[in-house]
Amino acid sequence: MEFLKVASIKDAVNQLCEKTYEFDTEIVEIDDLNGRILSKNYFSKINLPPFCRSSVDGYAVISSDTFGADDSIPSLLTFIGSGEMGKPNEFVVSMGQAVYVPTGGMLPQGADAVVMIEYCENVTGDMLTVLKAVTGGENVILVGEDVTEGELIAKKGTVSDFRTIATLSSCGISEAEAYKKPKITIISTGDELVSPQGKLSSGQIYDSNTYSVKALCEDACCEVIACLKIKDDFILLKKAIEDSVAKSDMVLLSGGSSAGEKDYTVKIIESIEDGFVLTHGLSVKPGKPTIIGTVSHKPVIGLPGHPSAAMMIFTEVFWRFLRKKRNETDNAIKIFAKTSENIHSAPGKSTFQLAFLEYKNGEYIAHPMHSKSSHIKVINEANGYIEIPTTSEGIEEGQTVEVKLF
Amino acid sequence: MEFLKVASIKDAVNQLCEKTYEFDTEIVEIDDLNGRILSKNYFSKINLPPFCRSSVDGYAVISSDTFGADDSIPSLLTFIGSGEMGKPNEFVVSMGQAVYVPTGGMLPQGADAVVMIEYCENVTGDMLTVLKAVTGGENVILVGEDVTEGELIAKKGTVSDFRTIATLSSCGISEAEAYKKPKITIISTGDELVSPQGKLSSGQIYDSNTYSVKALCEDACCEVIACLKIKDDFILLKKAIEDSVAKSDMVLLSGGSSAGEKDYTVKIIESIEDGFVLTHGLSVKPGKPTIIGTVSHKPVIGLPGHPSAAMMIFTEVFWRFLRKKRNETDNAIKIFAKTSENIHSAPGKSTFQLAFLEYKNGEYIAHPMHSKSSHIKVINEANGYIEIPTTSEGIEEGQTVEVKLF
Repeated sequence: MEFLKVASIKDAVNQLCEKTYEFDTEIVEIDDLNGRILSKNYFSKINLPPFCRSSVDGYAVISSDTFGADDSIPSLLTFIGSGEMGKPNEFVVSMGQAVYVPTGGMLPQGADAVVMIEYCENVTGDMLTVLKAVTGGENVILVGEDVTEGELIAKKGTVSDFRTIATLSSCGISEAEAYKKPKITIISTGDELVSPQGKLSSGQIYDSNTYSVKALCEDACCEVIACLKIKDDFILLKKAIEDSVAKSDMVLLSGGSSAGEKDYTVKIIESIEDGFVLTHGLSVKPGKPTIIGTVSHKPVIGLPGHPSAAMMIFTEVFWRFLRKKRNETDNAIKIFAKTSENIHSAPGKSTFQLAFLEYKNGEYIAHPMHSKSSHIKVINEANGYIEIPTTSEGIEEGQTVEVKLF
Repeated sequence: MEFLKVASIKDAVNQLCEKTYEFDTEIVEIDDLNGRILSKNYFSKINLPPFCRSSVDGYAVISSDTFGADDSIPSLLTFIGSGEMGKPNEFVVSMGQAVYVPTGGMLPQGADAVVMIEYCENVTGDMLTVLKAVTGGENVILVGEDVTEGELIAKKGTVSDFRTIATLSSCGISEAEAYKKPKITIISTGDELVSPQGKLSSGQIYDSNTYSVKALCEDACCEVIACLKIKDDFILLKKAIEDSVAKSDMVLLSGGSSAGEKDYTVKIIESIEDGFVLTHGLSVKPGKPTIIGTVSHKPVIGLPGHPSAAMMIFTEVFWRFLRKKRNETDNAIKIFAKTSENIHSAPGKSTFQLAFLEYKNGEYIAHPMHSKSSHIKVINEANGYIEIPTTSEGIEEGQTVEVKLF
């Protein structure tokens, strides 16, 4: 009997990172950047705002001209003209003068504040009555107040969202370098599996891993280029893996759960030139029968057959590998909760315990959800999961733990 | 002077829901269901598992045959054959007999437990030595243990994720009815705006709302079919709105911030047949200059020009409208935090205060991030925001508040 090459998740992920190629990058237009992961740092090309702007509709003035002004003793100023949106403001304000500026419009030279239009009255054509004093800088947005030229505005590894996109575009960046979406082939094996379009015969179950793993790949910014269903046969499976490695950047196998198949995958990877099995068995529950290998420096991962285990291993192993390769920073807000009961863990293994969260008396309570790894519904009903580390024998009732959300 | 039709967010959203058509639905294949919103309830077509399965590789036995078995006094059973994956198990186990079953394989009739292969030894061809006792039901997954036939497995309004997809497909559902993605046209106005591909002249700024709003539309399961840039001109803008309403399900206008434009949008909506302005001004900060209208029962929304305000109003008004129309259940886990300082709010308005979260001494601290609504960078750096309701004058330091995450 050959011993399994059992590894911790951390070691397995690190080893896979080392043994695989660096991810390609490409230039992505700002229109298509949502969800894409930046592969370099971005710095602003401009000051933001690039010119001194009014934050209100009103009159640009020299603030000292308005000091003491109120309803009973207004300041009288000479209106010398109006600035326009999107155009340079050519006026120069001297003592006793005012220029109309729309919100976002450029401040004329000489002015240091803007009086809101609500507090001004146009007495005659060129005489303006100011009913309220403004201080220097009031209602003014200074050059570079938001962002200064050359400032870091988006880090390498950022998963771009609407806010990244707003920041980049407002700083004049119309395209960005991002990691290419890795092309993935999902190979589903298991003679007991029938696609949900089909009809079950006795002893068969519906395939769900192909579909859930495809959705996870999409969430993880990967592109699934093919989903294959291969019979549980060494020759056929080897050919499918070889073809898939040639056409894709990564191959995910969703095993059936029979003992024979697991051996097939390992033996096939080892029988392919430039194929290596890095890990055969993870010290994790659920998900022990995970296979991590490479063929031609491309990841070939055998996910466990049980649906919940396959989803957990994708999330905690494969996605972690992707994040590490793409230098993603973990900005996820962590949820902390007290456990509602003792939770036992598997000695010497990282244990992922599904949990349901309840907010009660100002804190979260995590209720462990007991299930078998073959169960599917429970993962759909859980809010997330608790990771109990290898070194811990379990968690006591009332202990504060981190709950990772789905 | 005409008074603005100022409304609370809740009233504005409710009114918009009432005045607009119901969303169309379509059938979506399970492969494409990720992120889509279910428009009806789904019930399982089958028991899950559909047959009694083994959860391990091992020997199906009558449990009482193993009682008392251990290393020193093993039970001796007759091995009568092996079940195969994906096929009915035709064996019938009688007292003293055992049948090999792979993980996930069907249990033969008569057996009520499975002994893991690790605890069995095949002494001769048909004699099996069992070194460990099993109790009834051990290592067995019963019919319908996970899901029972007819059980509700996914609710109307669910935003499908990999877990929904796993559950539906494993229950034999290969396609689902989902809300069609509303087709949206984004019209950007504002003479000061230049696309980030262009070069700024004096007085101009880069357009960012088009891109951030497009990304938000994608996040909200909508399809942006066109992004138009229209000059600040009544006739041109009216034609663009009419054309866009004809081609799209919804129109989002991202205003420049000059006073004139705001009036245009309202006047244009009112000048179009079957056009109504429902709200002109929201009692919210930032985001007061929001316009909510309909043309031919299709939403026409004027977002504020300031980038942060536009993003907040999309999230808190438009997205809320979409969620309500699509019956989406709010499953988001709420984050609660203590404020690090007093936060002032605008009297009579809902105030959205950007905040940065820090985890300290077992709880979250929310640090308000002070900024002007014209600033963009700050929203990118915030973790989320605190909503201070209309009825509150502010939040005191140390008070516990909900922080909505971006």
